[in-house]
Amino acid sequence: MGHEITLSIDAMGGDNAPASVINGIAALARVDPDIRFLLHGRAEEIEPHFTKRTRVLEGRYEIRHTDDVIEMDAKPAVAVRRGRASSLWRALESVRDGEASAMVSAGNTGAMMAMALFCLRRANGVDRPAIAALWPTRGQREHCIVLDMGADVRADAADLAKYAVMGTEYARIALGADRPRVAVLNVGVEETKGRPEVKEAAEILREMAKRDDSGFEFTGFIEANAIPTGAADVIVTDGFTGNVALKSAEGIAQFISGHLRGAFEHDWTSRLAALFAIGSLRRLKRRIDPRRVNGGVFLGLDGLAVKSHGSADATGFSAAVELAATMSRADVINRIAGQLEFSLDSIKAASDSPAPAEDDQ
Amino acid sequence: MGHEITLSIDAMGGDNAPASVINGIAALARVDPDIRFLLHGRAEEIEPHFTKRTRVLEGRYEIRHTDDVIEMDAKPAVAVRRGRASSLWRALESVRDGEASAMVSAGNTGAMMAMALFCLRRANGVDRPAIAALWPTRGQREHCIVLDMGADVRADAADLAKYAVMGTEYARIALGADRPRVAVLNVGVEETKGRPEVKEAAEILREMAKRDDSGFEFTGFIEANAIPTGAADVIVTDGFTGNVALKSAEGIAQFISGHLRGAFEHDWTSRLAALFAIGSLRRLKRRIDPRRVNGGVFLGLDGLAVKSHGSADATGFSAAVELAATMSRADVINRIAGQLEFSLDSIKAASDSPAPAEDDQ
Repeated sequence: MGHEITLSIDAMGGDNAPASVINGIAALARVDPDIRFLLHGRAEEIEPHFTKRTRVLEGRYEIRHTDDVIEMDAKPAVAVRRGRASSLWRALESVRDGEASAMVSAGNTGAMMAMALFCLRRANGVDRPAIAALWPTRGQREHCIVLDMGADVRADAADLAKYAVMGTEYARIALGADRPRVAVLNVGVEETKGRPEVKEAAEILREMAKRDDSGFEFTGFIEANAIPTGAADVIVTDGFTGNVALKSAEGIAQFISGHLRGAFEHDWTSRLAALFAIGSLRRLKRRIDPRRVNGGVFLGLDGLAVKSHGSADATGFSAAVELAATMSRADVINRIAGQLEFSLDSIKAASDSPAPAEDDQ
Repeated sequence: MGHEITLSIDAMGGDNAPASVINGIAALARVDPDIRFLLHGRAEEIEPHFTKRTRVLEGRYEIRHTDDVIEMDAKPAVAVRRGRASSLWRALESVRDGEASAMVSAGNTGAMMAMALFCLRRANGVDRPAIAALWPTRGQREHCIVLDMGADVRADAADLAKYAVMGTEYARIALGADRPRVAVLNVGVEETKGRPEVKEAAEILREMAKRDDSGFEFTGFIEANAIPTGAADVIVTDGFTGNVALKSAEGIAQFISGHLRGAFEHDWTSRLAALFAIGSLRRLKRRIDPRRVNGGVFLGLDGLAVKSHGSADATGFSAAVELAATMSRADVINRIAGQLEFSLDSIKAASDSPAPAEDDQ
């Protein structure tokens, strides 16, 4: 599979923890013999989940007991101040202290980001770390990467340019894109549209992409309806907009699937149709099942942290841990650090140059 | 149907104009005998579309010839400077001059908003007009209203509060909601989350809603995935975020429907399933068909303008014109002016009070 790694796991985070956590890592351990796990949390709640079914984990895990758990609705600032004995903080500490090469949690996102900022610290040159997510596309690559999905509610032009650099490294690893196509999310594709920071970010990236060694192609602005077309591999936006875009897509997908179910229960022909359609709908579900693509990667920190969806089951949690393993083996943190070092000067030079003309919409 | 009204129509705007325009107004004229139409555009291109099928329009329309047409990709600022002889501008003029009580165009959105600002002027107390759209929901009311969908790329707290006031009047008319439930779009429902302007807007609206005569209920923050649940009737956000949310939902809906088609063509059982499922899928399509709910209403102007989707066919255009007729007969512009007059003092008082604490995420 790959070289041996140790992953640090918050065994208490998420709606279905610790069952989903233990069964999730067991599922991954079955296909990947080279991962060890540090499990942080309440030993008495974790241990009963080790059964015959999880025998594959024998000798490959260690439980680090701690009583404290960060609740899903805890305020980030409070969690940072008072949560240093929690499973979430301890899981991050294992990465900071070099015991593990990445951590995974399905817990409270805000608390996790706030704690990660304190515990792992920002990468050199980064003001705002970002959460990067995979977005399904009809394109050849099946996914693209969108960031920031909500680490911060704001991003200026230089932040957006750094998101592009970080997202590009992610895309090389996760999508196998040699020269990722980068785009800036906007409300139109014309150069005159959008907010000033978005237009300025496009200017910076256009300049950067001119260099042969930039490692990416800049395709300009993209509108949100074009994300699933696969027209770009890396799409940058501020965390407020990114979070709204993701949740809006989620909401409408649920709306449609609810109506689909209703449509197939309408009368006897539709119930018959449903029988025949089961295979087709399963294929579709498998293709866009959020459990199979789970994990927001925190980029711009001096250590690797992956956030699983809070409602993930074992399959979903397993996907997030697999993502952490892949990114860790590819050494994403150091690769990003290298790329940032290489790019910071040009980002700075470009952001200091005169801003583009004001919106003439 | 209602009292007699005259609507001003940009006969040249949109991908399928003027055919979609003439057939669209004919479809509405058939069920609503009390509308007259002023059609602005190239007479020689419009006239051939009056055939036996549109006989219902006889004696109920007038063509106002003009050669100039605003292209779909024209820049708004350029359109305003040089487009005063265009069908779009002339259609707006008919409203300004009191010849028509509303106008409809499927043309260039940016140009239409820029021209509407110049031609119709802002309503008293409004800094940023907004585009309001109907969003499908699973709720009892089938739709909610979201604004701004992209009139402006920014909105401060007072703008958002005014959007709530305008959207509330729209909801009373279009949804039949006596006391609409208003929410502010945010990245979480906790009070500490989000951008300062969003938190401040929530404070203002919470204060306003305390008055018995406010006419609305304030439900706090809403996340984008909850829009289709029908948890709120009026959802306010800045035009950048609103536009991204709408397009993101559109994009994923197209993605799913593309995959559904693929799933039903996979093998012979799925093709058989498709045969049986035709009725069910048609019902679903009818329920969420964007053609049946078409029309962005420009609110905050001293005159009524409705934007149809640029790719609307006759059915879609007809829906936009029907919306204009409904809003016009309900006197939405004067009702909004009255509500704004009533609310401006409390919005101002609330926005001048100390801002809520900074983001502690």
